Order: sequence, then structure tokens, then C-alpha cells
Amino acid sequence: MQKPFTIGLIQMRMEEDGSANLAKAQAMLEKAAKQGVQVACLPELFRSPYFCKTEDHTIFDLAESIPGPSTEALAKTAKQHGMVIIASLFERRTAGIYHNTSVVLDADGKQAGIYRKMHIPDDPLYYEKYYFTPGDLGFKAFDTKYGKLGQLVCWDQWYPEAARLTAMQSAHVLFYPTAIGWHPAEKEEFGVAQADAWETIQRGHAIANGVYVAACNRVGFEPSPNKEGRGIEFFGNSFVADPFGRILAKASSDKEEIITAVCDPKTQEQTRRWWPFFRDRRIDAYGGLTERFGK
Amino acid sequence: MQKPFTIGLIQMRMEEDGSANLAKAQAMLEKAAKQGVQVACLPELFRSPYFCKTEDHTIFDLAESIPGPSTEALAKTAKQHGMVIIASLFERRTAGIYHNTSVVLDADGKQAGIYRKMHIPDDPLYYEKYYFTPGDLGFKAFDTKYGKLGQLVCWDQWYPEAARLTAMQSAHVLFYPTAIGWHPAEKEEFGVAQADAWETIQRGHAIANGVYVAACNRVGFEPSPNKEGRGIEFFGNSFVADPFGRILAKASSDKEEIITAVCDPKTQEQTRRWWPFFRDRRIDAYGGLTERFGK
Repeated sequence: MQKPFTIGLIQMRMEEDGSANLAKAQAMLEKAAKQGVQVACLPELFRSPYFCKTEDHTIFDLAESIPGPSTEALAKTAKQHGMVIIASLFERRTAGIYHNTSVVLDADGKQAGIYRKMHIPDDPLYYEKYYFTPGDLGFKAFDTKYGKLGQLVCWDQWYPEAARLTAMQSAHVLFYPTAIGWHPAEKEEFGVAQADAWETIQRGHAIANGVYVAACNRVGFEPSPNKEGRGIEFFGNSFVADPFGRILAKASSDKEEIITAVCDPKTQEQTRRWWPFFRDRRIDAYGGLTERFGK
Repeated sequence: MQKPFTIGLIQMRMEEDGSANLAKAQAMLEKAAKQGVQVACLPELFRSPYFCKTEDHTIFDLAESIPGPSTEALAKTAKQHGMVIIASLFERRTAGIYHNTSVVLDADGKQAGIYRKMHIPDDPLYYEKYYFTPGDLGFKAFDTKYGKLGQLVCWDQWYPEAARLTAMQSAHVLFYPTAIGWHPAEKEEFGVAQADAWETIQRGHAIANGVYVAACNRVGFEPSPNKEGRGIEFFGNSFVADPFGRILAKASSDKEEIITAVCDPKTQEQTRRWWPFFRDRRIDAYGGLTERFGK
């Protein structure tokens, strides 16, 4: 059985300047490595402010190829520290096809795999359907030096189907790089409930699948370019839950920080023996899940 | 749009005598009706102590046909109070086929439908695979006078697939009659985490599906007939969550009581507009859910 390994979530505030974000990410990754982190995850689209707050053709200039400048820089960081790095990037696949993509760089700096975000949101100030072509690689978990790592991104976290299909690939952990925040006008009335629902449904995935779940969000207020709704206050609260749904580590709602937790495949084994949900799935009766809705 | 309606969960302690349990259920249902409850749900297998703590051929004598004595008695209660009643029964379908079945009795006393528990557990002191043939009716929601009511039972609550397929039938509420408790030897170390996981995963179903969730458990310590592991302390904690996953009402862990909550289809409508998860499901990519596990 795989040995226990330490994961670290890099909760960042993004600067306007893309180079500054890469430099900050590398500095925080180095710090994480010194703390014993073996698998590190960056927030969603960490190279820039969250650009989907408006629809603007020129923003596609931010996209890059994979492999490309970000993965080359981070591959060096990964190799230098012998650390797996999960990086969420704005991928330019070809002219007119862009994806919201997670790249897994193994501890030797080699690319272990990529996952292209499957569920694409579209909501005021989160105009992602404009930027991102839905992923066509399916749900993915990749073998790395330390463990098998399931890759999902943000909006995927609201879909039990995504968690299940990724866990079914023997993932030890489901990683969710995230960019979720409060609309200032909604925060007072719904802020607590929104952050709580976000955490609860992901803890639910941990429980349903007997798998660790790690969600890495950004922090900080980012104004809206066109003043629509003022902007978004990204609410941090990055966390790691164990296969029983218990929170092992949790970050603040407003500070840059690194949180760490140990993932032990033995805990996963024991949890699934106690609550053997996979044994009893009614796979003969789940065909309707490929329908949009009932009659 | 359907009007708001009030649901009530009847959290009971079971007596040895089956008639006493029926009488107590009817008394509590009457009390609930006087409190304005329009849809009431009883705990799983409310006619008897939880009999699956041991494997014994003679216990099949407890099973009854549907319609049968329990539904006849409860149909009268339903009609008398103009109240929908959800009753969980040990169903004898024919010689050698028994089910763990939920019956929905409409406000006029007529049977709105039955659901036969799809996911059957088997765990020390919960030897359900011995007693219950897995349901073959699929997942079900039934139209009633007050709303469309999704029917699930206990172990189903650990399966996001079951919640999804039931919600996809336009259910306003997912009901889970339940019999879950602590093994005395595990309670101190794991009791809190177990009850919390049980609630969390079901709140997750509410959030994922934008649907009300109502879980009705029993309370009380029931000894094990063969002294194995002493017995089970059923932990109550019956609750109703709204489509945002917020707890609207919650019962104690050890007392008989009725909890009530209002279900408003407008809240469901608004929640799904704000978080339109159904819109973005990747139904082209969910085929693997009918597999047992990955390669």
C-alpha cells in the first residue's frame, strides 16, 4: 500500500502582474516544500486576477500552451524540491479552443497528466462559458510519486458524478483548484451559507467515495472591470477533508497561507471497510444519470 | 407553482409490541396533524424493534403484504386528517421475496405509490442483505396532494446517484426513513463523526440537487438478541434541510419528538436559478457511472 504523504494547499491573493503571481507561487511552493509538503496544489487560474468577470476578446492573450511557460517554470520547482505540483492554467489548445486546465507535474518535473475542466459555469461575473471550451478528456486521476491524484476544477465540485467517476479511478485525493467568492451585495445575507454549502458538498464527496478531498481557493477582493456588481471577494477557506468527511486543515477567508494535511491510504482502506458504499452501488439502475432530467 | 406545505418527521422509540408501535405512530401523527403537518414521515420499519440485528428465519413472520394491515390503518389516519403519510414497512411480496418498502398514502387515504429500498446494507448488527431483496422498481417520486415526494430509505442516503435520480423526477423533497445508530463500543471514538457524516452527505444531496431533504430516524437503545456487540443506540437527529443545505429543523439524539418545516417550491426555484447545476451536467460523460469501479 502507498505510504502516507503530505499535501499542501497554496491559498494565494492574485496580483495584476502575471509574472508576480508566478514568482509568488514559486516562493510559496518553496516554503511548502520546506514544511515537508510532497504534493502541492495552487488555486484555479493562479497566473492572473480572475478574468472571467467580463467578456473581452483581448483576454484570450493570457492563455498559454501546455507545455508552456508556466509548466516549464513549475517543472523546475517540482524537480528542485522533489514535490508534485498541481497547477491550474488558462490553456490555449489551438486558435479558438481554450480550456481551464489542471496540469500535474510529478516530483521529477515530468508532466503526469492534464485535466480539462468538464463543468463550465456561467453566472454574473463568472462568464466562463465565454472563455472555456468544456473538457473532452473525461474525468482523470494520475499516478504520481506519492499517490494517485484525482483532478477536478472549481464548478466540478457541485457535481457528485464528477467526484464519483474520479474516485473510481482509485484516487487517493480529489483536488479542486478553485476561484469562488462573494458578490459584495450578497455577502451579508448569503455569505455564510454559500461558503458552508461549498464546503459541505465537498465533504459529502469525501464521505460518499471514501476519499480525501482538497479544495484550494484564492483570497482577496478583485474589482469588476466594468463596475458590474463591484467585483468579487474570493473567500479562501481552502480545506482538506479525510475519507470520513472530517476537516483536517482549513485556511482563513482572507489571508494568503499554506495549509497541510497527511493523506494516509490506510485510513482510506479502513473507512471503506467500515462503510462499504462501493460494494452496494446499484449499477444496474444508474443508466438514467446520462439523461438531462426526468420526463 | 405548488404552494408551500408543511412536513413533519415523527421520531419514535420502538416498543417490542408491534401493535403498540402502530398505536403510538397514529397518536403522534394525530398530534402532527394538529400542528398543521400536511406530509408526515415515520422512521424506517416503525412497526418493530430493528430486527436485522440478527439472522433468524422466524423474523420473516413480521413481514406483511402491501396493501395490508399497516397501510389500511394508516390510510384511515391519512384520510381523517387530510395528511400524506410516508410509512416504511417490512413487505412480504411473495414466499421468499421480502422488501424494505416505503408506502406513500395520499391525503385521501389512497396509495400514491411504493418504493422498494434499492441499496441494501450488510454490516455487523445490520444484516439487511439476509432479509431484504434489493428493490426492482428503480428510484421513485410520487405526486401527492401537497407536493411531489421522493422516496428513499436509509442506506440509500449514502448514494449521490439515488438522490440525483429521484430529484430528476421533479421531487420537492427527498424523504429518508432511517434506522441508524451507534455501536456502544464505537460511540465514544466515532459517534460524533458518524452522525455528522450522516447529516453532511444528505445536506450535500440537498445542495447538489436543489431539493429539500428530510431524514427521519428512530431513537433508543435496542439490545442485540444474541448479545453480539450489545446492541444499537439509534441516534435520532432527524432533520430537514432546505435546497441550499441549511438545516431548517433538527431533533434530539434521544427523545421521541415531532419536528416540522415548511417546504416552499419557490425557494427551490430560486435556489436552482442561483446555482443552476442541472444546466451544466455533463451527461455525455457520465456513462461510467454504470460501472462497478475503474479499470
